[in-house]
Amino acid sequence: MSVSPLLMSLEKALRCLSGVGPRSASRMALPLLERDREGGLHLAEMLSQALERIEHCEICSNLTEIQPCPICQDISRDQSLLCVVSSPGDILTIEQSGLFKGRYHCLSGLLSPLEGLGPKEIGLSELVQRIYDEKPAECLVALASTVEGEATTHQIVTGISGPTRVTRLAQGVPV
Amino acid sequence: MSVSPLLMSLEKALRCLSGVGPRSASRMALPLLERDREGGLHLAEMLSQALERIEHCEICSNLTEIQPCPICQDISRDQSLLCVVSSPGDILTIEQSGLFKGRYHCLSGLLSPLEGLGPKEIGLSELVQRIYDEKPAECLVALASTVEGEATTHQIVTGISGPTRVTRLAQGVPV
Repeated sequence: MSVSPLLMSLEKALRCLSGVGPRSASRMALPLLERDREGGLHLAEMLSQALERIEHCEICSNLTEIQPCPICQDISRDQSLLCVVSSPGDILTIEQSGLFKGRYHCLSGLLSPLEGLGPKEIGLSELVQRIYDEKPAECLVALASTVEGEATTHQIVTGISGPTRVTRLAQGVPV
Repeated sequence: MSVSPLLMSLEKALRCLSGVGPRSASRMALPLLERDREGGLHLAEMLSQALERIEHCEICSNLTEIQPCPICQDISRDQSLLCVVSSPGDILTIEQSGLFKGRYHCLSGLLSPLEGLGPKEIGLSELVQRIYDEKPAECLVALASTVEGEATTHQIVTGISGPTRVTRLAQGVPV
């Protein structure tokens, strides 16, 4: 073993990051050790803090370290508008646009029987229960237009009863 | 602030890794939190261990957590052959090829007066002293063929006296 075993372990551990393979892991580990030890230690600290403290919001399932999450706590947001997404990343994207002022509900993925994801696994009944309890005027289903997304949307539409109007994201070119 | 501040700090910290910008940081942080918390905690642990324990070898300046480094300790390697490189990454690359069986000396970069890197900053006198002490039969200067690399090579060649033969990497196409 001619190369530092600890350096090898660090490169292997870096590969848990998405998009990082053996070559980029090596390209990341060396500059950290040679030039930016402080940044690396800060990253280690932030990683353990974030992974220990960030949980899913008990209301909307968004990622948050405060219960309930800042969006659910924010009473200035439109309580009559609920947007259904399939991952916390979608909430980030929509929030960055700054155009949506309602609240969110985050499913744990999309229906996919082949991967063993049924209505129970993605938390569909919690969504239906929340809509039944809160009775928002509009429920905007913002799921992908893939087979899984369409199936999940269909399941949501059939599951909701009562005064809530279900809408979807616009698609294609306006005529 | 509608998005978890801790998540934002994690994304910012991830940008200390080379090649990681705002978008890839976000693409790395979310999957860690959603699917691979164990891998992330392992990475945090490895980062702090590596950054605290890996130092430069007291003989060759390679990165190592053992003093002297495994290559300098290895008495089966050719003691009469010394390869000069400009960063620990070069040692890794040469070791992966498995073709070089001598020992290394790692400079802290290349001469670059514009960046304030003089002979003292890159540790040139330690190299000359080591060659004077160990008197290897051959010193292979494996530096980049850039202006800085050529200048450094020139400085090494003029600095070495005694029986050591200085060679360089082959370049171009063999005729």
